[in-house]
Amino acid sequence: MLDFTHDPTATAWLDSANAPDTDFPLQNLPFGRIRRAASGEEWRIGVAIGDAVLDLRRALALGRWTSVEQVLLEPLAQGDLNVHMARPSAQRRQLRHALFEALRAGSPQAARLSAALVPQADVEHSLPARVGDYTDFYAGIHHAEAVGRLFRPDNPLLPNYKWVPIGYHGRASSLVVSGTPVRRPWGQRKGPQDEVPTFAPSLRVDHELELALWVGPGNALGEPIPLAQADEHLFGVGLLNDWSARDIQPWEYQPLGPFLAKNFASTVSPWIVTWEALAPFRCPQERPEGDPPSLAYLDSAANRSQGGLDIQLEVWLTPAGGRPSRIATSNARHLYWTAAQLLTHHASNGCNLQPGDLLGTGTISGPSPEQAGSLLELTQGGKQAIVLSDGQTRIFLQDGDELALRAHAERAGAKRIGWGACSGRVSPAVPAA
Amino acid sequence: MLDFTHDPTATAWLDSANAPDTDFPLQNLPFGRIRRAASGEEWRIGVAIGDAVLDLRRALALGRWTSVEQVLLEPLAQGDLNVHMARPSAQRRQLRHALFEALRAGSPQAARLSAALVPQADVEHSLPARVGDYTDFYAGIHHAEAVGRLFRPDNPLLPNYKWVPIGYHGRASSLVVSGTPVRRPWGQRKGPQDEVPTFAPSLRVDHELELALWVGPGNALGEPIPLAQADEHLFGVGLLNDWSARDIQPWEYQPLGPFLAKNFASTVSPWIVTWEALAPFRCPQERPEGDPPSLAYLDSAANRSQGGLDIQLEVWLTPAGGRPSRIATSNARHLYWTAAQLLTHHASNGCNLQPGDLLGTGTISGPSPEQAGSLLELTQGGKQAIVLSDGQTRIFLQDGDELALRAHAERAGAKRIGWGACSGRVSPAVPAA
Repeated sequence: MLDFTHDPTATAWLDSANAPDTDFPLQNLPFGRIRRAASGEEWRIGVAIGDAVLDLRRALALGRWTSVEQVLLEPLAQGDLNVHMARPSAQRRQLRHALFEALRAGSPQAARLSAALVPQADVEHSLPARVGDYTDFYAGIHHAEAVGRLFRPDNPLLPNYKWVPIGYHGRASSLVVSGTPVRRPWGQRKGPQDEVPTFAPSLRVDHELELALWVGPGNALGEPIPLAQADEHLFGVGLLNDWSARDIQPWEYQPLGPFLAKNFASTVSPWIVTWEALAPFRCPQERPEGDPPSLAYLDSAANRSQGGLDIQLEVWLTPAGGRPSRIATSNARHLYWTAAQLLTHHASNGCNLQPGDLLGTGTISGPSPEQAGSLLELTQGGKQAIVLSDGQTRIFLQDGDELALRAHAERAGAKRIGWGACSGRVSPAVPAA
Repeated sequence: MLDFTHDPTATAWLDSANAPDTDFPLQNLPFGRIRRAASGEEWRIGVAIGDAVLDLRRALALGRWTSVEQVLLEPLAQGDLNVHMARPSAQRRQLRHALFEALRAGSPQAARLSAALVPQADVEHSLPARVGDYTDFYAGIHHAEAVGRLFRPDNPLLPNYKWVPIGYHGRASSLVVSGTPVRRPWGQRKGPQDEVPTFAPSLRVDHELELALWVGPGNALGEPIPLAQADEHLFGVGLLNDWSARDIQPWEYQPLGPFLAKNFASTVSPWIVTWEALAPFRCPQERPEGDPPSLAYLDSAANRSQGGLDIQLEVWLTPAGGRPSRIATSNARHLYWTAAQLLTHHASNGCNLQPGDLLGTGTISGPSPEQAGSLLELTQGGKQAIVLSDGQTRIFLQDGDELALRAHAERAGAKRIGWGACSGRVSPAVPAA
């Protein structure tokens, strides 16, 4: 699946895209929904390149494109990524090739398209696409084990974990894009010593480090997606912070799962790195020796050998007015189930997936304690504070704390690509009525 | 809150709306999204009246309306109920008054609007509105107790049940309108004797008898809705069959709740009876003596005295080619939490509700065994078959079975109103690949 857009030696005519540590070289070309900040102009889709964004509305107007490329660019110029997500992967790849050539060093389009560039610092983002449904999985086995161990020390993983990808439906309306403040929620909580529950602002606001899998064309109701066709329906990957109120969750979640502990906000990164751009970073599925094989509908040689994603993940915490501390690192290869398995399992009962649907992977903790993707794990259930670089300590998030997820992919023979940040700052709870 | 539209003596100029047993008298005026079957014409919103539908696209063109009424009718003529749901309740009431007067016996509009009527038998329906998010609650305490008793005979209700309204997110994409076939899902199941799970078509497809609460204007993210304002945000009530695969659910649902056992399809009634039309059928909240009072944010005198809904519910099962059997009756007054409490609780953490969002109540079983809203309960966990009127027996649903929910509200001093049917027929599973 590698083609010329993965050539690590290719360079762009925009110098900042050739910096060795940029998240956005020519080989990346992620999509976001942008407009110049405070301009009131219409939203349009942009493609990150170096420290700039190629504004596809202006690029369509200013560039030279084939008639097919014009058709592909039109909805993006109008700010509608969902239409593009719905296109067959061959068409998505065709647009990627065209943008790659147009931005490549020596392109005859350079002069025309330089007028379609906007500095990243000058744009604001909305959600990159309209999300019909948001599903959150639980595919980070080290997170499932660590959290399970807090509640069931002898038996941390439930018997179904290694057979059926565990997932639940999340709330689409409260998805927000990176940079949106996240208000501390009120909720019911009841400690083991409390006689009755109380309703008050949460004292245990936490983050969860996840990837967001964005769905492409999808399936009709009643028509499952075979594993061999899953790639066709994976549009791209973003970052996802599944904010969680750890004191609301234990009281409300039996027997139907998390609800108000999760749906006050979930933050996604502004940029979606396409499935095509991730081709060099596929890796074998990570499975401990002796684990059961996946059932036939979730198994294939290709999935075992290259279903995984080698993506390095970081979590940063910045207190109000303070300096950033990196509080965890992890890697997406630690996911127990692959993106293709999650998508195929989701549709295996006929459930229809639609362009722009979002599948969270679940918290991606690594096997070591410092690779934990949530404060719940880093603090051993709230018992052991972590120390930040300026000496402050944290058990859970305080008002004013900014939490940022970062990610990049880097492998021998490939050009490093990244996601930028997925961040949000905790703001104070609504005052009591 | 009663006004002239609740006058039980008022009659319509369309005779069929004055039949004593009609679901759709002048006092009802529910909304649905319709077009003439197989016509290919644009969808529009219609109002059921007697055995006909007032096509609001044609009604706008043919009738005499004030300029305000024209503004209110315009999006409905275009088939967009969500715009109307977003309007303040005063405007929704204003349109109700206008439609009531226009359809009332003696209206000068009768001749003009009779050309805007279509027989109900001639229309097809889509979902009445675009559903952004679908939440399913668990407010039927007799269902929660009966199902809990199957798993925990000594302790059927979990300790949180009487304090916090239990709910979880459902799948919006697989909501379908009454009449849509429901394909038997495949899924993983594992019995207690099975060494490993198998992936196969479900053998335990069941129905769940619920009400669908349709959300009106809603709230901004981070801004809760006080209980005293909940009425403003309740647009209306439909019927909901939350189809469930009882063999998939126990294997997959720990620890995050139901997922593929539920999201293969959920069927809603074509008609939404407005919150205004339900004013005569409000009743006291049903709470056993000695139960804990609701926490302050979920408590008010008005909610206790008139938060409930007195709606009679029926479940009918018709085998392929067979005749209908009424297999259960119940009443919405048995819900433990009121519609206002469910809505206020949902937004209490700042979660934003949007026009067209759908809140399922949870299965509304009554206190007696024959009032059970699911086959799981009627058959005591699949152990005792029920006998249909033609002598056939059922434990769970077979291919070809049609399951229909029906409802009506009837009280002294009020005109009886109803919902028609919410039905779906089970079709065979997808053949093995």
